[in-house]
Amino acid sequence: METKHKSDVLRRMKSIGGHVKGIERMLEEDAYCIDVIKQIQAVQAALNKVSAQLLENHLNSCVVTAIQSDSAQERERVLTEIADVFTTATKV
Amino acid sequence: METKHKSDVLRRMKSIGGHVKGIERMLEEDAYCIDVIKQIQAVQAALNKVSAQLLENHLNSCVVTAIQSDSAQERERVLTEIADVFTTATKV
Amino acid sequence: METKHKSDVLRRMKSIGGHVKGIERMLEEDAYCIDVIKQIQAVQAALNKVSAQLLENHLNSCVVTAIQSDSAQERERVLTEIADVFTTATKV
Amino acid sequence: METKHKSDVLRRMKSIGGHVKGIERMLEEDAYCIDVIKQIQAVQAALNKVSAQLLENHLNSCVVTAIQSDSAQERERVLTEIADVFTTATKV
Repeated sequence: METKHKSDVLRRMKSIGGHVKGIERMLEEDAYCIDVIKQIQAVQAALNKVSAQLLENHLNSCVVTAIQSDSAQERERVLTEIADVFTTATKV
Repeated sequence: METKHKSDVLRRMKSIGGHVKGIERMLEEDAYCIDVIKQIQAVQAALNKVSAQLLENHLNSCVVTAIQSDSAQERERVLTEIADVFTTATKV
Repeated sequence: METKHKSDVLRRMKSIGGHVKGIERMLEEDAYCIDVIKQIQAVQAALNKVSAQLLENHLNSCVVTAIQSDSAQERERVLTEIADVFTTATKV
Repeated sequence: METKHKSDVLRRMKSIGGHVKGIERMLEEDAYCIDVIKQIQAVQAALNKVSAQLLENHLNSCVVTAIQSDSAQERERVLTEIADVFTTATKV
């Protein structure tokens, strides 16, 4: 990954880690369940953004390299991986 | 799309169309709301399967052709499209 | 369901049925896969709206009646149903 | 929340926090993007489980109390909250 992309994605993940810590504290302090659920949903939206960024980066680097390579096996592998993460994405 | 894939996907969409008609009837006959919601969720799971099949087919045809082509613009276009449907998939 | 809500939900489902028919035609006419996937995602967003409307209606009618009733079993049943559709909703 | 439920939910959130930390490390060590995305999807599935547990607990405590109370405003509030988290759940 390019340094700029990497540091951006890493920064987002650290922020998500902080958010998760905050939710633990809310649970310890018996916060109202609905407020906790809303915070969990916010974390999930943030994770969706990181996933989308990682996939975009992946498509523009590894996928292009693999598809332009001479190895049919390598092409097959990267395309199956993308189909798999898409299938899972529609389920979580 | 290959004839075999196409007829399979088309068969699934026709079945989904029938399922949607069935839900209309349930609503007309004042079916229990929870039962209607469960049928809607079943339709959504079926639509997810069709989307995944279409994407897989797309990856193995148009995407490979575009990435192996000499046009950087064409490569860019197909990759952006995939990133877009992935982003939307994590939201619906 | 109140007549007004019912006719609104029914109108939406009929529109979704028409949308699904349109997707069948796109497939028959070999439309571009990404365009088909985008239409499927639009149908899913529309189905989400119908589900949300049905759940809201259900909460304000059956759920209130059941929870105010004397039957603990009846209360248990409606609450379990809501937990179930929520669990499924986070997966489709 | 009952002590047993609370400690179970809290244990899950701590485990999710550890999982997120692990993903940060994967990013720092330039792990393969697809592997990172799969770990993010695993975290999201774990968060869905926590949300579902919290909602179930909420339904069986606050919601029952509110609906059996004499305050129409209080009933309205809890029902609107549930409809809201359901709507968001179908989007993230």
